Amino acid sequence: MDIQGLSDKVVAQDRRALARAITLVESSREDHRAQAAALVEEIRRKAPHQAVRIGLSGTPGVGKSTFIESFGTFLTEQGLRVAVLAVDPSSARSGGSILGDKTRMERLSRNPNAFIRPSPSQSHLGGVARRTREAVALCEGAGFDVILIETVGVGQSETVVAEMSDLFILLLAPAGGDELQGVKRGIMEMADIILVNKADGDLKATATRTCADYSGALRLLRKRPQDPQDFPKAMTVSALEEDGLTKAWEEMRTLTDWRRENGHFEGRRAAQARFWFEEEVKQALLAQLQTAAAKGAMDQLGLDVATGAVSPSVAAQRMLEQLKHS
Amino acid sequence: MDIQGLSDKVVAQDRRALARAITLVESSREDHRAQAAALVEEIRRKAPHQAVRIGLSGTPGVGKSTFIESFGTFLTEQGLRVAVLAVDPSSARSGGSILGDKTRMERLSRNPNAFIRPSPSQSHLGGVARRTREAVALCEGAGFDVILIETVGVGQSETVVAEMSDLFILLLAPAGGDELQGVKRGIMEMADIILVNKADGDLKATATRTCADYSGALRLLRKRPQDPQDFPKAMTVSALEEDGLTKAWEEMRTLTDWRRENGHFEGRRAAQARFWFEEEVKQALLAQLQTAAAKGAMDQLGLDVATGAVSPSVAAQRMLEQLKHS
Repeated sequence: MDIQGLSDKVVAQDRRALARAITLVESSREDHRAQAAALVEEIRRKAPHQAVRIGLSGTPGVGKSTFIESFGTFLTEQGLRVAVLAVDPSSARSGGSILGDKTRMERLSRNPNAFIRPSPSQSHLGGVARRTREAVALCEGAGFDVILIETVGVGQSETVVAEMSDLFILLLAPAGGDELQGVKRGIMEMADIILVNKADGDLKATATRTCADYSGALRLLRKRPQDPQDFPKAMTVSALEEDGLTKAWEEMRTLTDWRRENGHFEGRRAAQARFWFEEEVKQALLAQLQTAAAKGAMDQLGLDVATGAVSPSVAAQRMLEQLKHS
Repeated sequence: MDIQGLSDKVVAQDRRALARAITLVESSREDHRAQAAALVEEIRRKAPHQAVRIGLSGTPGVGKSTFIESFGTFLTEQGLRVAVLAVDPSSARSGGSILGDKTRMERLSRNPNAFIRPSPSQSHLGGVARRTREAVALCEGAGFDVILIETVGVGQSETVVAEMSDLFILLLAPAGGDELQGVKRGIMEMADIILVNKADGDLKATATRTCADYSGALRLLRKRPQDPQDFPKAMTVSALEEDGLTKAWEEMRTLTDWRRENGHFEGRRAAQARFWFEEEVKQALLAQLQTAAAKGAMDQLGLDVATGAVSPSVAAQRMLEQLKHS
């Protein structure tokens, strides 16, 4: 593959080239992996452009597609170029991806200043994570200003998305009464802004109440050094009526500007880069267990261990010997 | 070291030999590790005795030491030999161990049918876990009938203890009102029996109420195939007044007997052995990153990644190359 040519085209904002480049980073073939790394490095060198990376988490039913459609369109109307990527480790199972059905974002998908890419069908979260990070780098090289990285929040996917975002947004639906929606404390602690969607029609009052509940919950969290006053915060939006989007974007900009001025923006990116470097090294070491031969040996030794024929430690030593000589 | 001689003495129930054997499995020296594995294997072969392994979790303040003292003494009065081990990854930090202060179990520590061993001072949970599993095997070889494995529940230590126990007991203190004590759902789901301690004096009524709360909470959990009717269950005990201990032991026996008859006892041990085998293989692969040279390289590459001089993927590839040639 002509890495030079492809990188030139991506940097020149050729959408087809970008799509092809992302297909390359999605491949798990060994030769493709090496090419992908070279491509990402080349593009990083040619176009050290920096987008705002916004992680967006929301379970099915909160209106995430509608929000991305409205918010993405709003951003393009501000003259910004928007890319949408997804981290969905479950997409392999369901056979499709959350963004597979582009018709759910019909308007945005036809917008020349927007680029939507569904989650690749890989069940392994580590694989999806690496591919998404590389796709983010490619989109930055292709000059996008805002990159939305969405997730449905299956398993650890929220943590993965937060670890590659400059901002982490939690999208919620209005909830009856004062019940918080079973949002785990860990997720709350990752959120920079909570958006309570569907603040329209019959649900408007409920949305306002829900927002107040979450504002209260956020105030109980420990203050983080990377936040200016009043952050993290909760606010209402209506993706359907395109209401609150300007305000939401303003808040996101206030937060990123503050972090840039205080060194937290670059600091976070540096910490993330280091995290992913260590993560990749560990994953690669553990990947030795994923070859067919290794799996077979693990299964056989696992049986011996289960029947008590050999102790876990001795079996582990035998396995490690085998890996050493393979 | 004379592994044959040491194993003979351990099997002959020589307490000093057992203590020395545990010191050997606690060592992280490479030559000691190999000797320890040989010793455990030898003892397993010579004395395939099976104890009941009881995991016991309880945060400081619930009266865990008093409970172990009372319950351990009670068991010895039933003619049983009892070993007490601890999993406490925090003990390295605090400089001592939860069981370091044997004076807190003065009576039990002087009991010839009891053996108490504090948690080794290792901050690495994986290290503590392996040492404890091997110590369990040594205690079984030394003919102990019941092995209590206690933890204060720091980080993942409850999961570690549950993964090496036949029964998992959660010890709680009476709580005012109907507040559950912030016990995580995951911990509740691991518990076979919840014991609400301090059901004596002024706290008796509160303990009964707390017990009812937890009984209710346990009923809401999904039924597990490895449980007979009425399990998991909650009950009150008073370690101080030695009240409820007979009943608690009866319940533990009912549960283990049922599991033995239904194949779940051996099934659980088989699954645990397999789990630890896989865990040891993974830990050994990742241990390549713990040498001084590897740490230095990781730090240097981590800096390059943080400053943006190189991408996480390229840095990871360089690190893996380095490991291959070291």
